[in-house]
Amino acid sequence: RRSHPLSMPLMPLLRRLPAAALQLRFLQLPQAAPAVAASARHQRKSLSTSATTGPSAQPTSPAGLQATVDVDSRVLTLHGAAADDQAGVATLNFPLAWLRDNCRCSLCHNSNSDSRQLLMNDFDPTAALTEATVEAGQLQLLWADGHRGCYPLDWLRARHFTEDGQVPPDLRLSKSIPRLWRDWPFRPDFLDGQAVMSDDAALLELLQRLELDGLVLLDNFGTDEDSLSRLCHRVAYPRRTHYGVIFRVESKPGPSNLAYTTGRLGFHTDLPYFEHQPDIQLLHCIRQTRTVPGGENSFADGFSAAELLRDRRPEQFHLLATALTNFRDRNSDDLDKFHLLQRHPVLELGRGGQVRRIHLSNQQRDSVLRLPLGRVQAYYEALKEFNDLLYDPGHSLQLRLKDGQLAVFENGRVLHSRTAYQGERLFMGAYLSWDETLSRRRVLQGL
Amino acid sequence: RRSHPLSMPLMPLLRRLPAAALQLRFLQLPQAAPAVAASARHQRKSLSTSATTGPSAQPTSPAGLQATVDVDSRVLTLHGAAADDQAGVATLNFPLAWLRDNCRCSLCHNSNSDSRQLLMNDFDPTAALTEATVEAGQLQLLWADGHRGCYPLDWLRARHFTEDGQVPPDLRLSKSIPRLWRDWPFRPDFLDGQAVMSDDAALLELLQRLELDGLVLLDNFGTDEDSLSRLCHRVAYPRRTHYGVIFRVESKPGPSNLAYTTGRLGFHTDLPYFEHQPDIQLLHCIRQTRTVPGGENSFADGFSAAELLRDRRPEQFHLLATALTNFRDRNSDDLDKFHLLQRHPVLELGRGGQVRRIHLSNQQRDSVLRLPLGRVQAYYEALKEFNDLLYDPGHSLQLRLKDGQLAVFENGRVLHSRTAYQGERLFMGAYLSWDETLSRRRVLQGL
Repeated sequence: RRSHPLSMPLMPLLRRLPAAALQLRFLQLPQAAPAVAASARHQRKSLSTSATTGPSAQPTSPAGLQATVDVDSRVLTLHGAAADDQAGVATLNFPLAWLRDNCRCSLCHNSNSDSRQLLMNDFDPTAALTEATVEAGQLQLLWADGHRGCYPLDWLRARHFTEDGQVPPDLRLSKSIPRLWRDWPFRPDFLDGQAVMSDDAALLELLQRLELDGLVLLDNFGTDEDSLSRLCHRVAYPRRTHYGVIFRVESKPGPSNLAYTTGRLGFHTDLPYFEHQPDIQLLHCIRQTRTVPGGENSFADGFSAAELLRDRRPEQFHLLATALTNFRDRNSDDLDKFHLLQRHPVLELGRGGQVRRIHLSNQQRDSVLRLPLGRVQAYYEALKEFNDLLYDPGHSLQLRLKDGQLAVFENGRVLHSRTAYQGERLFMGAYLSWDETLSRRRVLQGL
Repeated sequence: RRSHPLSMPLMPLLRRLPAAALQLRFLQLPQAAPAVAASARHQRKSLSTSATTGPSAQPTSPAGLQATVDVDSRVLTLHGAAADDQAGVATLNFPLAWLRDNCRCSLCHNSNSDSRQLLMNDFDPTAALTEATVEAGQLQLLWADGHRGCYPLDWLRARHFTEDGQVPPDLRLSKSIPRLWRDWPFRPDFLDGQAVMSDDAALLELLQRLELDGLVLLDNFGTDEDSLSRLCHRVAYPRRTHYGVIFRVESKPGPSNLAYTTGRLGFHTDLPYFEHQPDIQLLHCIRQTRTVPGGENSFADGFSAAELLRDRRPEQFHLLATALTNFRDRNSDDLDKFHLLQRHPVLELGRGGQVRRIHLSNQQRDSVLRLPLGRVQAYYEALKEFNDLLYDPGHSLQLRLKDGQLAVFENGRVLHSRTAYQGERLFMGAYLSWDETLSRRRVLQGL
């Protein structure tokens, strides 16, 4: 691609002169010829700026403001339009197709639903531009078909393109990068459950910690069996599964799930036999068994353990990240009879190679294991090694929740286990999804 | 790896002699030495069979029945144990680690929850085998630590391993492979809505067609606004979203979504700004507008269109399968304020390269587009081309649903659109997930 050398130094005029009305006028392009027509290739339009004569126009200093369009690459470049805080940004580049696609006029963009109204059927990715004007903080475009578009410059500044990609949006929009437990090390304190229910700042703290640490503990949450549902609805709504909307974790006759016995459970994630295993789990201790010891919960940062495995046994890490494990649940519960099946890698990697979700449940791992004969022994040794690493005290902890305490944890990151117990014990359980939970956090932050 | 040549021809004895009690006795392995200890490497145990002397034993013909264990690869091989219908299967191979992991005894396996009770903490992937016995249709194993395991032979036959992998489980357990519309071609008829609500066979037909075709139409479903919820609960339960559990599609003041206007909608999938976009959508026509024309729905098989794109413009197919598109929904509705965001490829491919989910919504596509400047024009041209292909009559159809009719479709496969309309019009909408829907189909089939 050809570069766009700046003919004049960066002049961030527009931010300093909000009332200024500047006009950048292009040479008129032939209306009938699309901008990429062969005859127009390798032609570049370069224009100087001029102040408008409208009544609201202030005296301006247009020197340095310049717009060009590269007809070959179909990119419009604004020179001197960067904001004061965009140090090092000499030019703002916008593909013409993107500009047409993201026209902010009331025909193309519905402000009630804040969504694009322009249909793809009516969109021409090769639409030619006739004229560009900057006036009162808006870029206004006239397209060859007569359509007029407008774009607030502040809105454009946050979306300009570089050779590497569009500028990143506000980082707070994304899920936070996990703080691995062994790196600091992590030892949780308790947040106040009543504050979380009544104070938005306390709820925001819970959600932010959950993103970072994968585990948040609450006390002073009471022992009302309905409180957990209220907390879920304060965030968004619980994710229903075949075990119900809110489920009772207690010893049951003819248990449909090993969690509903008094037996010991090893470190596991819940419900890995879903295509999308529950993201977040909440366990509310209504009544802890009075028989000591017994009923203790342990939590382990599986991301931390996985990174240890990646360091120490890269071939085992690779195996668990690529081999598919079958998970299965076939029984009866809230959803009458069910038979759920899915295959996942134990370590699901994101596009950047980071571990983004763990699927592991010894009790729900299927006897179906579709690996070649020669890989089975190595697979089991990797499973065993990862399980051993989970118990490393650098990223695991045991605690005995008391009546009125609550654990909220990222199911696909922080694996949980339970010691066997005797006596009466009741926890209420529920699931949340990241999508709605992150949505709630963004709204609390005013994003 | 060393091969396991058969010393005798295949003798499928066990299936024909169900009451026979055969005993395969191994040479005793040293109890303290794991089977993979260096001293035991490259050693193979090969044993002949002998009839037991128990009172229920029938006269048997043990010739040809033989068991071997390869100490090096840790694989147990049963010769002559294949079923009559396993033509061409000379031997049944089982990794020792898999056998120990999948012990079916009542300590290791919980029959109430049909799940593994053996903890990974208590599992030794290098456990050594001391003795193997086949008796009354069961393989019984004695491990070096004294644990005794048992496995029904029928259960084993369905799970033996080959060099390429474990034998495939019943194909009906998986989601059916789609029948692309342009291949037959697809023209839907209507199923009877009342039958689906009362007759399991009719419900099963609906679910099977939905897997194959991605679109099922029902009539005679009535105009009760609560019927859709009842249908969802007959399958499983509706998936709740920020638009509610069951949502009303009608023209609303200050619409939170373009669907809640009278405007035209292009082909789209619903809610692509979720990490897991809704799998299945149901639209129940309570009242179609009396003003003709207007309010017609169109459906297009996006998988069919994607294959056309793959054939005709492979570079565009590749771009839409790899470039990430940002989707966004920021507004207020059932879930008060929300701000949902996700990035997906428009064409999400499965592990085998097949298109498994489409994410496309012009109205919810974000202005954030994190592509390098040089790829943007090609991206828009690919989007436009795919959109054009969706309207190919070989895999799209238009219809005007009448009061009491219902469309059920795979949201990530069959894109839907709507013409603009005037007058009063009300549809009820809901979502289902494949996991629970496939579970229901398996249960209806007795799987």
